[in-house]
Amino acid sequence: MKETILSELLLQRLERPAGTQADRNGTHMNRQLYELIRQEILAGSISAGSKLPASRLLATEIGVSRNTVLYAYEQLLAEGYVTASTGRGTFVSQTFPDHSALHKAGARIGTTPVPAVQQNSNRFDLSRRGMHLVSNAGASDRQWGAFMAGVPDVSLFPHATWARLLNKHWRNPRPQLLTYAHHGGYMPLRRVLAEHLRLARAVRCEPEQIILTTGIHQAIDLIARLLADPGDKAWMEDPGYWGTRSLLTNAGVDVIPVPVDNEGIAPDAARLQDPPRFIFATPSHQYPLGTVMSLTRRRMLLEYARQRGAWIVEDDYDSEFRFEGRPLASLQGLDEHDRVIYMGTFSKTLFPGLRMGFMVLPKPLAPHFATGLSELFREGQLMQQAVLADFIEEGHYATHLRRMRQRYAQRQGLLREAIAKRFGQDWPTSTHEAGLHLVVHLPPGADDLGISMAARTQGLSARPLSRYYSDEQRARQGLLLGYACVPEDDIGPAFHKLAEVIEPALEHLARTRQPPREFSARINNEAWSGA
Amino acid sequence: MKETILSELLLQRLERPAGTQADRNGTHMNRQLYELIRQEILAGSISAGSKLPASRLLATEIGVSRNTVLYAYEQLLAEGYVTASTGRGTFVSQTFPDHSALHKAGARIGTTPVPAVQQNSNRFDLSRRGMHLVSNAGASDRQWGAFMAGVPDVSLFPHATWARLLNKHWRNPRPQLLTYAHHGGYMPLRRVLAEHLRLARAVRCEPEQIILTTGIHQAIDLIARLLADPGDKAWMEDPGYWGTRSLLTNAGVDVIPVPVDNEGIAPDAARLQDPPRFIFATPSHQYPLGTVMSLTRRRMLLEYARQRGAWIVEDDYDSEFRFEGRPLASLQGLDEHDRVIYMGTFSKTLFPGLRMGFMVLPKPLAPHFATGLSELFREGQLMQQAVLADFIEEGHYATHLRRMRQRYAQRQGLLREAIAKRFGQDWPTSTHEAGLHLVVHLPPGADDLGISMAARTQGLSARPLSRYYSDEQRARQGLLLGYACVPEDDIGPAFHKLAEVIEPALEHLARTRQPPREFSARINNEAWSGA
Repeated sequence: MKETILSELLLQRLERPAGTQADRNGTHMNRQLYELIRQEILAGSISAGSKLPASRLLATEIGVSRNTVLYAYEQLLAEGYVTASTGRGTFVSQTFPDHSALHKAGARIGTTPVPAVQQNSNRFDLSRRGMHLVSNAGASDRQWGAFMAGVPDVSLFPHATWARLLNKHWRNPRPQLLTYAHHGGYMPLRRVLAEHLRLARAVRCEPEQIILTTGIHQAIDLIARLLADPGDKAWMEDPGYWGTRSLLTNAGVDVIPVPVDNEGIAPDAARLQDPPRFIFATPSHQYPLGTVMSLTRRRMLLEYARQRGAWIVEDDYDSEFRFEGRPLASLQGLDEHDRVIYMGTFSKTLFPGLRMGFMVLPKPLAPHFATGLSELFREGQLMQQAVLADFIEEGHYATHLRRMRQRYAQRQGLLREAIAKRFGQDWPTSTHEAGLHLVVHLPPGADDLGISMAARTQGLSARPLSRYYSDEQRARQGLLLGYACVPEDDIGPAFHKLAEVIEPALEHLARTRQPPREFSARINNEAWSGA
Repeated sequence: MKETILSELLLQRLERPAGTQADRNGTHMNRQLYELIRQEILAGSISAGSKLPASRLLATEIGVSRNTVLYAYEQLLAEGYVTASTGRGTFVSQTFPDHSALHKAGARIGTTPVPAVQQNSNRFDLSRRGMHLVSNAGASDRQWGAFMAGVPDVSLFPHATWARLLNKHWRNPRPQLLTYAHHGGYMPLRRVLAEHLRLARAVRCEPEQIILTTGIHQAIDLIARLLADPGDKAWMEDPGYWGTRSLLTNAGVDVIPVPVDNEGIAPDAARLQDPPRFIFATPSHQYPLGTVMSLTRRRMLLEYARQRGAWIVEDDYDSEFRFEGRPLASLQGLDEHDRVIYMGTFSKTLFPGLRMGFMVLPKPLAPHFATGLSELFREGQLMQQAVLADFIEEGHYATHLRRMRQRYAQRQGLLREAIAKRFGQDWPTSTHEAGLHLVVHLPPGADDLGISMAARTQGLSARPLSRYYSDEQRARQGLLLGYACVPEDDIGPAFHKLAEVIEPALEHLARTRQPPREFSARINNEAWSGA
């Protein structure tokens, strides 16, 4: 290609800006010229080996400053589109893939057809574990409103106090707090947290045993990856938290669902003969049923874990919200043999978007987990950790917990009233004492998934209990109703709306199967026996 | 045990507070009484089946209010230490593990000895993959100061502007921004980011293709877990980023180190015959050597990935800091066949502790990655994302990048001057154009690890280049020196201090092996040939 032809081509293609000469020579034009030449090279209209016009010549021909051309050429040079040879000029590079090299390597190139399967369907396939994860997704695509389970009322979070503390720290931030964190996070926060956990949860720990995480998910993931190899076994409560199952399964851990009775996770004799690597449990408030693990069961698990070298992972996700008496002591506090790993989160007590949680580890594990956290996740957020340390230390955390505990108790009461009003006093629901949600049980055979989907069309979240079970034989029907994030005045009307969805489903069930009347007696008598 | 004996026991054990009667009946006493009875039950001094004294009686005997006793009893009841039988009283529960049940299950209990290996050494063992991760840890335990690589100067971050935007958003936060995120994060941020990436990095994407992450690590992890199964292969640049290797290996992916030549990652013919699932690369600025991938190599890789259905993962970690010309266009922008996954981070452009990054995915993958992110990590931080969206939109991001680019160019210049002054103009160092660190090469055989450790005792970070190689045969010696976070005035003196450590090591090498004189010629001629 003659140099002048290139100039003409460029002239044709160049958008002529309506602006002034200044525009034409500004960065806009540098960029435009570079883009244009680059596109022509990629499209093949300026072929490899072509010499680009001398910069001065091109500048004159297309009416831009020489600097503009030089800038574009330098950029093309830097990116390998052109090469410069001193004294000879600037040439378009040979940048098409070297077909002969690929050929030698046995690759099929260009005209050789590629098998269809490679071309299309497989091109965007997830891996087996990825597909399993995505197709068993449990996370809700809604995170707010009636009756979203597990979401606190973030509108009552004392944001002015938080903003004041944020301001204080951002006024003159220490550089060390803006860079990566290491060794498990901000030590002053771990200190106040150790104190809080000792008082509020009877957790026994030194600050060095605490690792700050982004929440329960990161903690589970870290446990699975540092303490388990693929094929290791974990017992998990059935029903239980979908996130635990997803994370463990994705990490190659073999999840064994273990039924829950009225004392908590209940492995039978056969199960006990085959000790797992982990026992995942929610002793303070079984998720999602709300049962409290009995002391007998706690001690049995601790003894069993000690003997068999298993790890008990205590997920203490919402234990701060116990409405009567003080919060139940943690399982960790009963452990004399370092077999419990304790996980907590600020998602329920402050706000989920904060993404802050923690784990309390046996002393010999803590340094390994600090290292593992840095390797896998490169932690940070020290500013946020410093703000939270102040928030706890100045007493705002305790005050907020107290306030929310009252609010949630009141909201739970209102929801129970609404249920009783519509379905009768004896309609079976889960325990009263604690938490951010309750379970409304439904008669066996009720289509809780269908009800949930119908509720969704009414703008209501009501997650189906049956979906929390791994074992379909064991699955019971019901709805998880979160009351924590629903304002008092909305609870009655929202439940009324939900009942309009539930009732037709129950009537249909009564016509076709057993009447719901039998159901109350059944659930009340056998409810937690796992029968 | 007689009820009065229990009262006596409790009286003996009760700390008698020096305070007033009010103290004795306050929460302090509630708690103390509860703890005391609990401990006695656990220790076995109050045996199972014992009846606790009537609350009124105990209150009188130990001199506390009846409410104090009732509170303690209720808590013990709630936690299962005691049971209440209406009209009969309160009894200590049988809570020791049911030995017979465990026996039936074949477990060894109590007096039966447990094999030593179970009792001790194995009790805190990490898994194989956990041990591998921790014992090959690459994360530094320092994150600030001369010559920490990969850390920007966070003290120059416009914190007042950031604080103002934080304030604006926290003044009246929308509840939806305080709860969990989903679908890949805050859409307005993804919109401004798509625009920024298009202009600054020639990335072609719609906002829907962007998933907000907590950084490069989370992105790599997500890729490995959604797109690979254990045993799948990934090519990785050798030398390369330790984090990529750690994450992939921990996720069961088989990492294959591929040498880097002066055009970038350079698979040979044999390697090309065995296509991997992933090709991880740093095209804009090879980490850690600083080379720019040639256009020829880029097009070869894209063509190869298209044919073989491989994924190219482009890690564009610090490409914004290119000191001459505009930043190099991304590999993603050249891709016509959706084979590139692009990863970026704000760790280098804003501050690492922010923990914010992003990935740009081919359209068919984006929804799966959004779901996978929610399942594995439950994302949040929408407030922070909203602040960042404003920060970019109001032009502060572009301004900050411009300012930092100048500063880092200046600092790199000062470090080069210091090196030249001490070791001569021709001493081999890595490329000049970009980034937050440079590599000072050392003669073959130099103990860069030893130098690094000695530097550490002087309070200096200087990471050894040889440790970035997987293949020891290929490893070259040198030091990674980060200049970005070192104030201008400190660079010369800090390098002087470092040179005091380097020189004796080189003199020792010269006496025992080959003289460093040969080295300059060697590195300059063969430096990037991978020879």
